[in-house]
Amino acid sequence: MAEHGGLHSMCLNKVDCHSSSSSEQESEIFTKLKVSLTEDYPQKNAEILSGQYGTNLLLIGVSLMLVIGNNGASVKEEHLLSFITTLIIVQLLWMMWYIVRRGMQSNLQAEKDVHATTSWIKGGLTLLALLSLIMDVFNIGYFVGYRSCLSAVLVVYPIIHATHTIAQVHFLWFHIKDVIKSFETFERFGVIHAVFTNLLLWCSGVMSEANHLLNHHNTRLTALGFENLTMVDMEPHCNCTISACSVFVNGLYYLYPFNIEYHIFVSVMLFVMWKNIGRTLDLQHNRKRLATKTQGLVVGPILGLAALASTIGVLVVYIIHVEESLDIRESTIAIFYYYGIVMLVLMCSAGVTGLLIYRADPMPMDTTKNPSRKLDTELLFGSSVGSWFISWCSVVAVSASRSSPSYRWTNLIYSLLSILEKYIQNLFIIESLYRQREDGEREDAEVAGPAPEIFSVTSSLSPPYNGIINQAYENPDNGCVTLENVQESGQVNGCPQKHLEVPRQVENNVEVTPSKKSQILKNIAVFLFMCNISLWILPAFGCRPQYDNGLEEETFGFTTWTTVLNFAMPITLFYRMHSVACLFEVFQRV
Amino acid sequence: MAEHGGLHSMCLNKVDCHSSSSSEQESEIFTKLKVSLTEDYPQKNAEILSGQYGTNLLLIGVSLMLVIGNNGASVKEEHLLSFITTLIIVQLLWMMWYIVRRGMQSNLQAEKDVHATTSWIKGGLTLLALLSLIMDVFNIGYFVGYRSCLSAVLVVYPIIHATHTIAQVHFLWFHIKDVIKSFETFERFGVIHAVFTNLLLWCSGVMSEANHLLNHHNTRLTALGFENLTMVDMEPHCNCTISACSVFVNGLYYLYPFNIEYHIFVSVMLFVMWKNIGRTLDLQHNRKRLATKTQGLVVGPILGLAALASTIGVLVVYIIHVEESLDIRESTIAIFYYYGIVMLVLMCSAGVTGLLIYRADPMPMDTTKNPSRKLDTELLFGSSVGSWFISWCSVVAVSASRSSPSYRWTNLIYSLLSILEKYIQNLFIIESLYRQREDGEREDAEVAGPAPEIFSVTSSLSPPYNGIINQAYENPDNGCVTLENVQESGQVNGCPQKHLEVPRQVENNVEVTPSKKSQILKNIAVFLFMCNISLWILPAFGCRPQYDNGLEEETFGFTTWTTVLNFAMPITLFYRMHSVACLFEVFQRV
Repeated sequence: MAEHGGLHSMCLNKVDCHSSSSSEQESEIFTKLKVSLTEDYPQKNAEILSGQYGTNLLLIGVSLMLVIGNNGASVKEEHLLSFITTLIIVQLLWMMWYIVRRGMQSNLQAEKDVHATTSWIKGGLTLLALLSLIMDVFNIGYFVGYRSCLSAVLVVYPIIHATHTIAQVHFLWFHIKDVIKSFETFERFGVIHAVFTNLLLWCSGVMSEANHLLNHHNTRLTALGFENLTMVDMEPHCNCTISACSVFVNGLYYLYPFNIEYHIFVSVMLFVMWKNIGRTLDLQHNRKRLATKTQGLVVGPILGLAALASTIGVLVVYIIHVEESLDIRESTIAIFYYYGIVMLVLMCSAGVTGLLIYRADPMPMDTTKNPSRKLDTELLFGSSVGSWFISWCSVVAVSASRSSPSYRWTNLIYSLLSILEKYIQNLFIIESLYRQREDGEREDAEVAGPAPEIFSVTSSLSPPYNGIINQAYENPDNGCVTLENVQESGQVNGCPQKHLEVPRQVENNVEVTPSKKSQILKNIAVFLFMCNISLWILPAFGCRPQYDNGLEEETFGFTTWTTVLNFAMPITLFYRMHSVACLFEVFQRV
Repeated sequence: MAEHGGLHSMCLNKVDCHSSSSSEQESEIFTKLKVSLTEDYPQKNAEILSGQYGTNLLLIGVSLMLVIGNNGASVKEEHLLSFITTLIIVQLLWMMWYIVRRGMQSNLQAEKDVHATTSWIKGGLTLLALLSLIMDVFNIGYFVGYRSCLSAVLVVYPIIHATHTIAQVHFLWFHIKDVIKSFETFERFGVIHAVFTNLLLWCSGVMSEANHLLNHHNTRLTALGFENLTMVDMEPHCNCTISACSVFVNGLYYLYPFNIEYHIFVSVMLFVMWKNIGRTLDLQHNRKRLATKTQGLVVGPILGLAALASTIGVLVVYIIHVEESLDIRESTIAIFYYYGIVMLVLMCSAGVTGLLIYRADPMPMDTTKNPSRKLDTELLFGSSVGSWFISWCSVVAVSASRSSPSYRWTNLIYSLLSILEKYIQNLFIIESLYRQREDGEREDAEVAGPAPEIFSVTSSLSPPYNGIINQAYENPDNGCVTLENVQESGQVNGCPQKHLEVPRQVENNVEVTPSKKSQILKNIAVFLFMCNISLWILPAFGCRPQYDNGLEEETFGFTTWTTVLNFAMPITLFYRMHSVACLFEVFQRV
């Protein structure tokens, strides 16, 4: 598509391009201009062009947030909200345009990327969106209560945000899998605008939550007589005129985490849509998932539910007792660490068992192109950095600390296990996502049989054999294995000494019982799934010993440590949320 | 390789695997264990495994740095230096092992990735390494002067660092292009260890430089009577016993930037080596570069030299006058902005001209796999974020500021142009790197001619046709063009309406004169090359109006703004350095 437009626009620069009559030429130039405006740019450049646009949008927003952090400045929250509102309106206009245009072309069957999302992700997203809507309602209620002293922007914003949420969920339900093939450059801008609008909403949510937490933390410290910090004044300067104000304020505190997760999830999904623009799908791998079998699922769910129940217990104990006297506080924190150590040891064992099963049953990796999976992997790896950083800081703090509360060494063990657990879990999830599925492999094996002539260009373009050529490119060793089976021509370009592998592998596969293995893996996935939900619940609902134990704060200083936590905590929450999503995917695959 | 080891290790888990005698079995098990330790892991997992290890190393280092920032803590600089020294020694051991092993296998011709680096990059790197060595000598001299009150670690560190620098440059000269094919998992750990050791050295350099700058800035502010901040005590508590101490201290100030650049460059090169492990090279594209033609190079170099000369003038004026009275200071800053605006306008025009030339002469993009180029692109894009962030903060500050110095609006224009310039330059560089070279295209055109039977699997594995299959995979549209030329079979799998493109494109290429076009592009590349050097020199040698103009500091607050600058300034410097490297590459390609 890209070169097509480019060739047209080139003609524009040449007077002697065609010899036609004047009016014909005019209409032709008009058509060409239209083409060059919409499809002219080569794909790589269009990506960079729109990517740079989106990045700059985010940077403007972040710099506005930084100014607001400095209380003396003339930029207020209203300015930031106006900026975000503008971005939201632009996104709404684009989505409307997109949906209308698609509606008009409904006769054309649009290409869909089935990997882009699953119905359970959509369901979860809808739930998060509903909670976001409730948050908007609370925000509006809050404004109504304090309307005499708040700017009107503060009520426009939640209304626009609610509209945006509804429209966006509709868009995600019906269009997120679309592979866009027309107006590519323009659509790229539209999608990336949506991605970065959501990212900015995420940043803004994170900032609000960090402020909330900091204030909460300061109030608590002041109440305990630890410090006497000047607090940021967040309360409006007038009285609430309705009775439900405190409900709204407290409700908002618990709804924030969901709103944050909602926006980061949406931006990830839209990013996949952006990467899919102009892509040609590999039809072989674009098939429906098989139904998931659930027999033999006993140990995993039971252990998982036990973990979840004990988590809720610990959460309740923690929240009630951490604000009490110093002694009770110390033992509460110690309880948290003991609980954490048990959880993490179990999770590590589960992950290691999974990895050992994979080692005992080697299977080629699935190397077909799948932007959604690649992004999942990168996000998993990237978001664990936040948690690792907190843990390493704790390790350093414990080693260097001069005071020695009872939980000093349990904190050390907890932090080290926390690092190890993410290390192992990432390996397990990524290997699970990249291994070829058994059914997929069977099909490949059938395909590998036929005589050499089917590997001509014509047949290599028809669906069933597409996958093989692709594999030969992305992971040449794999390709060689398949091809030598057919050719037996020996040392062909870089794949020596591989003659015996395919038969042996097949033989081995027959020996193991896949259902038993897959049952264990399913149990592991379910258990880890529940554990990750547990470890998400704790910090999301206020059980954050890193704020309360005082060790890190003493070593790093209050400012540095709260900055680290405010930056890394939301990433840690995202990590747990994202691994829950990935583990569900793993559960369906194994 | 991966599956090979995996199959062996699977046998270990089965008692009935083979029926052989006891001693035979033992030696067999030993061999298998050896294999499974070195080559067992599938590629994707080995990457994640080693990547996670490296990331954690860096995080430990960064958390140590954070503690040092807090003066009261019991962790001192010596602890950080001991940690870094340990990492360096491990890297030295690995490099020694690698070089010795390679030496023993010298009969085997190792595969090399010619894209990995060029001799001029090696040359530049050697120069940076020499300056780093001088820095080490200065550090040793500094220690000798103050030896009565400094820890011995402070002299061990520069000695080890100097050894590391020499050994590493040797390694880069002779082994950086190697494509490692044996002991893959182990080598991955070795290379990633080297990557993150250098990244940590980079971080440590950035931190030292930020401290230097902050102290310098505070001294200046205090001297001008602006503020009276408590300064971090960086001076040792005894007198220098040799006369050259001040020379060492001042010399270190100017040598730091080079040391920082050296480490980031090395880690980028080693990262490419890491990505290349276990890769199978596409032999067609793995060929030597053509000699670069230099006729017609007049306007670019002349304008570039003029830019460089005026830069040095501005730098001298700035450094001399910025510490004088408030009036002179203000006009000095204004001069800087005027100069910057002229430079940036010229650079934008050059970039736009280059892009227009590309639009007028459409050519398919080169989509072959090339980790080095992909990384270049990502680094260019990623590192411009730092500079964009500073610029957007300036824009916000100028708009929100209550004071109005003479340079207020020139600062605004300068910041906006600075954003635009990077936007355009990135597009220009990336398009230049991804366009197919004229000679490359000619070859492809010749290859596209022959009859269908050459596209069988056998021939698709032999070098000359390898590239085509690959393109068909990575950018299916391109592949379709080539294939339809042969087949004319119409609507094959996702590439409709493309029949006329190839002939038209060839015809168009004949019409343009490539030498003229390439001359203009070469001039643009040279000009931008010189301009980027200029814009690197200014901040590297102390011309940083963002610290001096006071506008941003007023709006964001001192702490926030210096944090932003300390984070973003080194990235900005890296951006300039990296675009210089990329533009040299562009110069050779066009």
